Amino acid sequence: MPHVTIPANLPPGVPGLMQYRPETGRPLSSLAEVLLRSPNSLTAADRELIAARVSALNECRFCTSTHTEVSAQQHPEGRELVDKAMADPDSAPVTPKLKALLDIAAAVQGSGRNVTEDLVAAAREHGATDTEIHDAVLIAAAFCMYNRYCDGLAAVTPQDPAAYVGMAKQIIKNGYSTCAG
Amino acid sequence: MPHVTIPANLPPGVPGLMQYRPETGRPLSSLAEVLLRSPNSLTAADRELIAARVSALNECRFCTSTHTEVSAQQHPEGRELVDKAMADPDSAPVTPKLKALLDIAAAVQGSGRNVTEDLVAAAREHGATDTEIHDAVLIAAAFCMYNRYCDGLAAVTPQDPAAYVGMAKQIIKNGYSTCAG
Repeated sequence: MPHVTIPANLPPGVPGLMQYRPETGRPLSSLAEVLLRSPNSLTAADRELIAARVSALNECRFCTSTHTEVSAQQHPEGRELVDKAMADPDSAPVTPKLKALLDIAAAVQGSGRNVTEDLVAAAREHGATDTEIHDAVLIAAAFCMYNRYCDGLAAVTPQDPAAYVGMAKQIIKNGYSTCAG
Repeated sequence: MPHVTIPANLPPGVPGLMQYRPETGRPLSSLAEVLLRSPNSLTAADRELIAARVSALNECRFCTSTHTEVSAQQHPEGRELVDKAMADPDSAPVTPKLKALLDIAAAVQGSGRNVTEDLVAAAREHGATDTEIHDAVLIAAAFCMYNRYCDGLAAVTPQDPAAYVGMAKQIIKNGYSTCAG
């Protein structure tokens, strides 16, 4: 049960919290929309995978399930690649650039101060641009917020994986801005 | 030196990053404006203190210095109280409600899952409302993002404490929305 009284008609997880307090929900949903869906040299599927990976490291079930599913439904190489990358990014057949950005994201999850010159140099060596490095850091940092927001208020978290399939379809169709109601 | 090339004319710290990438800077600054400055039963000084406390736990010098200074310049009980609360919130003469909200924020800093029913019950016992509990959790979660964003990109961090005095005055006068340029 959430730590604050969320009306029963609101959706589970972070979208329910965004609608509970729309004043903060609006910038929170706008940030997700820009970071994960706006035009970018990183695909939406890859950005969602970074979000899912950080959420898994933070052990946030709602966000891990949601963003794994949103990535899987959009990934040109399909769900199998996404599942492999979530299980073990080191051995998964992702591009070296995405692997390097996932390494930066994993460092950020622990602390911003864990991002070393070597991690950044490795990403550049594999073709990452300044904007891609910036966005990988900010996606990871932002999910350190969304995950804590979700679990810190004990938001409703569906246990059935099927619940996330429909939510992911809605996000892909309508975007994050509609999550805030 | 920052991990990405930030033009030399941009301000240090998070505002410089917001102006480097205004697409994400706008929702990031709007979120700070709503959380820390919009009308609220928690004073701006107390909300800034929660932000400063979380930033100190994350060892983010830029955000700790900025938000300690913004709190101190606005706190009706003055800088001495803010310095005491930053040095040792357990022994500082803050209200029991603020103490309980700082305890929730410190839990969130570690993980959202660290927020226990007991921590929430203690805040309620001292008069915290649902919105205040929500906002304390989200301020703490948001600073786990801002701190990682700042340090994860190695943003310019002034060493001289005097540099933060002027920045804090600007924030109090003009708000966070202008930080994004």
